[in-house]
Amino acid sequence: MRADKLKQLEDIQKLFKIIEKKKSTPTFLKSEAYEFTLNNGLVVKRERIIKGRNDGSAVIIVPYIGNEVLLVIEPRVFTKSGVGVGFPAGYIENGEEPKTAALRELREETGLVPERIEEVDAFYQDEGCSSAYNHIFLAHNCKKLYGQELDKDEHIEYMSFTVEEALELERMGYINGCNSKIAIQKIIRR
Amino acid sequence: MRADKLKQLEDIQKLFKIIEKKKSTPTFLKSEAYEFTLNNGLVVKRERIIKGRNDGSAVIIVPYIGNEVLLVIEPRVFTKSGVGVGFPAGYIENGEEPKTAALRELREETGLVPERIEEVDAFYQDEGCSSAYNHIFLAHNCKKLYGQELDKDEHIEYMSFTVEEALELERMGYINGCNSKIAIQKIIRR
Repeated sequence: MRADKLKQLEDIQKLFKIIEKKKSTPTFLKSEAYEFTLNNGLVVKRERIIKGRNDGSAVIIVPYIGNEVLLVIEPRVFTKSGVGVGFPAGYIENGEEPKTAALRELREETGLVPERIEEVDAFYQDEGCSSAYNHIFLAHNCKKLYGQELDKDEHIEYMSFTVEEALELERMGYINGCNSKIAIQKIIRR
Repeated sequence: MRADKLKQLEDIQKLFKIIEKKKSTPTFLKSEAYEFTLNNGLVVKRERIIKGRNDGSAVIIVPYIGNEVLLVIEPRVFTKSGVGVGFPAGYIENGEEPKTAALRELREETGLVPERIEEVDAFYQDEGCSSAYNHIFLAHNCKKLYGQELDKDEHIEYMSFTVEEALELERMGYINGCNSKIAIQKIIRR
């Protein structure tokens, strides 16, 4: 790992450290409950997470720029460090195709546009309590064509790393969300 | 893949197919909201999933029996197929050590007791909306010493497969939850 890169990452993490926290009122996360009767006669009650207007299915994008991959750094207030490092990601909007969502999120979070994008995997984020189904894309040969266009409550910094450095960041515990951990396997396997 | 094994798996899946569904009232999933002030002066509002009495941190256990690994099959009512295939897993109870939870869940779901258990990875399940931190264990040289002891609303079948077959089940889309997908990487890397 280049020492200057790690220093730069840690400086960004410091900016996002939490200094104060106060309780507020939920408007985004809700839940639903159902009783299901199964083929063998069993009845099970299960509850489901709702995020805003849908199930919170998301896209995760691995952006290649030359021989490096781009990682985003952002507040992840419920984790131990309070700051997350991972690949660009975001929720799929109602009626949106996953690929369209991936291109939109990549552009909004980083201003990048890829030459080619391909879906390489998909998975349920919380099989027991959610129908969120997340899609992983590799975005090849990205070019920086736009500025960031973030939602008012989003604060995202980004940096690029070699594949080896990205893997090292995972091993060091900087990358520790399930989305990015599954996505990083797709880099290794190529 | 042995044809008889796949047939057996599909027969279990059929038992768990949903034939009826009716709305009920949530008692397990809740949410909390907070406003955080960050080091650089930014203020962000974020919401957090609560599962029962805590954040829903879980353990996932890869049980080795001889040269095979054990997979569980259970209703996953919010997924497309309605039935999940994956490794044994369950929530960590308040104050419980992850390793203790892993041994407990393995025994409850399958009656297995390992000779040795080791934690090989951990990750945030939903970095943006949860503090759930899930731990993956490899359970070596398991022996069937007990019967299943399931909660009244749990219905779990199990089968063992070679490592190659388990990987094939992932590629074929039978195993598609993030917990099991991250855990299966730990088999490959050994």
